[in-house]
Amino acid sequence: MAGKDVPVSPLAPKRQPKVPPVPGVRFATAEAGIRYQGRQDVWFALLDQGTQVAGVFTRSKCPSAPVDWCRENLAQGSARAIVVNSGNANAFTGLKGREAVKLTAEIAARAAGCKPEEVFIASTGVIGEPLDATKFKGVLDDCARRAADGPWIDAARAIMTTDTFPKALTRKAKIDGKEAVIAGIAKGAGMIAPDMATMLSFVFTDAPLSAPVLQSLLKTGVDDTFNAVTIDGDTSTSDTLLAFATGAAAANGAPKITRASDPRLKAFTKAFHAVLADLSEQVARDGEGARKLVEVVVEGAVSKPSARKIAMSIANSPLVKTAIAGEDANWGRVVMAVGKAGEPANRDKLSIAFNGIRVATRGARDPSYDEKEVSTLMKQDKIQIKVGLGLGKGRDRVLTCDLTKEYVAINGDYRS
Amino acid sequence: MAGKDVPVSPLAPKRQPKVPPVPGVRFATAEAGIRYQGRQDVWFALLDQGTQVAGVFTRSKCPSAPVDWCRENLAQGSARAIVVNSGNANAFTGLKGREAVKLTAEIAARAAGCKPEEVFIASTGVIGEPLDATKFKGVLDDCARRAADGPWIDAARAIMTTDTFPKALTRKAKIDGKEAVIAGIAKGAGMIAPDMATMLSFVFTDAPLSAPVLQSLLKTGVDDTFNAVTIDGDTSTSDTLLAFATGAAAANGAPKITRASDPRLKAFTKAFHAVLADLSEQVARDGEGARKLVEVVVEGAVSKPSARKIAMSIANSPLVKTAIAGEDANWGRVVMAVGKAGEPANRDKLSIAFNGIRVATRGARDPSYDEKEVSTLMKQDKIQIKVGLGLGKGRDRVLTCDLTKEYVAINGDYRS
Repeated sequence: MAGKDVPVSPLAPKRQPKVPPVPGVRFATAEAGIRYQGRQDVWFALLDQGTQVAGVFTRSKCPSAPVDWCRENLAQGSARAIVVNSGNANAFTGLKGREAVKLTAEIAARAAGCKPEEVFIASTGVIGEPLDATKFKGVLDDCARRAADGPWIDAARAIMTTDTFPKALTRKAKIDGKEAVIAGIAKGAGMIAPDMATMLSFVFTDAPLSAPVLQSLLKTGVDDTFNAVTIDGDTSTSDTLLAFATGAAAANGAPKITRASDPRLKAFTKAFHAVLADLSEQVARDGEGARKLVEVVVEGAVSKPSARKIAMSIANSPLVKTAIAGEDANWGRVVMAVGKAGEPANRDKLSIAFNGIRVATRGARDPSYDEKEVSTLMKQDKIQIKVGLGLGKGRDRVLTCDLTKEYVAINGDYRS
Repeated sequence: MAGKDVPVSPLAPKRQPKVPPVPGVRFATAEAGIRYQGRQDVWFALLDQGTQVAGVFTRSKCPSAPVDWCRENLAQGSARAIVVNSGNANAFTGLKGREAVKLTAEIAARAAGCKPEEVFIASTGVIGEPLDATKFKGVLDDCARRAADGPWIDAARAIMTTDTFPKALTRKAKIDGKEAVIAGIAKGAGMIAPDMATMLSFVFTDAPLSAPVLQSLLKTGVDDTFNAVTIDGDTSTSDTLLAFATGAAAANGAPKITRASDPRLKAFTKAFHAVLADLSEQVARDGEGARKLVEVVVEGAVSKPSARKIAMSIANSPLVKTAIAGEDANWGRVVMAVGKAGEPANRDKLSIAFNGIRVATRGARDPSYDEKEVSTLMKQDKIQIKVGLGLGKGRDRVLTCDLTKEYVAINGDYRS
């Protein structure tokens, strides 16, 4: 495993949150030796009967075998087990890949006492290498015996690849006055020689939500969170976000929610979306080689999708990202990125601000712009680029990080 | 000026071609002190009466003032002078930018003895700074006095920014049995602190072609040459490709061509397109920090535009480009880039080859693939990635370069 001596991202949270158990969820981690020896590379979770599941996946036209498997089995809406491994993505592995997923599900189902189609699977790691699923034999049975309701940080750590810190967090929310808990873990978009960048995230709650309600929560939450984060514009074959609702909070009197429009869901929805927002921000904070968190805000576009496209063009521009790495408020490159997005933009109405200081207005440099003041602000950990288009009411926001030599080193300095 | 001690690209041509005069074209270079002292930053060319002009420009929605000017004046089809400066792009300069272009054209017109609208202008350099066009006063008059029919290499050198070598080349071609000459210069997609990446190219011929014929030659030639080269996916506000036909070869008996479909134009078209191809390849060979020229070929797509989109997705992927820098035949990242392009692709029909060695076939690793053999090939200067989609007859090819730490250093290691 490369990158083991990579220091923790300077953008990591100063302290790890204490994530409480989620009633109905137990898990354990193990060493299956998928690719490397001597590291926890499997996370196995058991879910109480009645657990509902929802998910969103990579838009890649070449998805991995586990993504295919999860998509197929979402329809029936219930889940009893989760297997996540690192070391091998089981992507681009043809028929063998489908067989490996099937065998993994069978082994897990025996260990969990459920049907194979109630097992959800995610894999991250090398592409194109057959995954030897027989390595899960025994290992998952042992995990089932040891399964406990924590600590979540171990689960977050077992699914890491080039991540420099584990990502786990929690929120509490009331449904109709009764408390429910939400816990989530994620691994970031990082790559590791010669493995593949992949974003995986798993969110759990004991709230009694039906699968369609859970799917709706994900769908409304993901667009402004996980879909609004970009590290390098590259899209993994394996990106997976799964949400599970065990329903255990019904024991405290929480009502079963079966309609997404149920007004009793309002506070919970807010908390759930906050979990997605925080997890996805942590992914940006752990972008490969990242030294600065970059927030791109676009206002005054003709529509929100147009604002998103322009924000993504800025957030994915190597020239903008290297300028941020160089602590340079290079708004000329922002103009360039606006211009190349192909969306409606009027050069003579454009304004640009870095961390609240307007550097350009109405198509030219802001006459009052003090370069020294901006230079000082550019040394901060978090940089906000705000672009005003002056055309309409479309607004959007995306998160990214800067592009440093460390990114190139992590992704280029090795031989496979 | 940053980057002055950057070594010449290892991909530079081993020797500079000898570019002959183009009858009807004379030029000189000068120091106008636009941004830096002590460097040739202006190239002024005089064109004989009757010279026809055609051009293609950046697709940016925020084009520079000179791009606006050239677009407006192309319609009348004739050109008598060209002013190109480095040091200031005159982009995002508002009304002042338009005034600076107008003043430049007036000064040039007086020096050349023509109308301002017969002057074509290109600027490359910093964005957002007002360009002081009064600096051209006297300088262009002096250039007009000194104007000569060579050497082209001086012209190529005067328009460089972060280019590590001047780009000039030539071809001869016959029209109806009578010889005509083509000469072209280009500057590459390179950036320089805190200036802007820009591709500029100027192609000249003495062939007697009407402006619409010349425009047609550009239009049919540019798509597979300049439009098929990408360094980092970023698009300048100032990209400009202009072609000029002086018509002087009529003195040798070359016929005037006024229809693009004229069969007598066939050999010339081929030579003209070859000049565009060679110039654009030189731009890729001088990409910032480039150590490898990368050719991406996509075959078997549902259409040529679909093949182009997939090829661009591969060529612009930071993960593919860092892998090439690391001399790693990381076909997993190529699969990723195919998948994210959003074009029709079937994972189980995909094949991938590096420099002629097939590493993946029908959706899985090629069983006969010898990693050692491929590793040796990856040490070469030129890497070809060939992707077969197995869906149709769409084929396309784009050129790029690898992504190295030097790219990040050139674009990020400075303070403005």
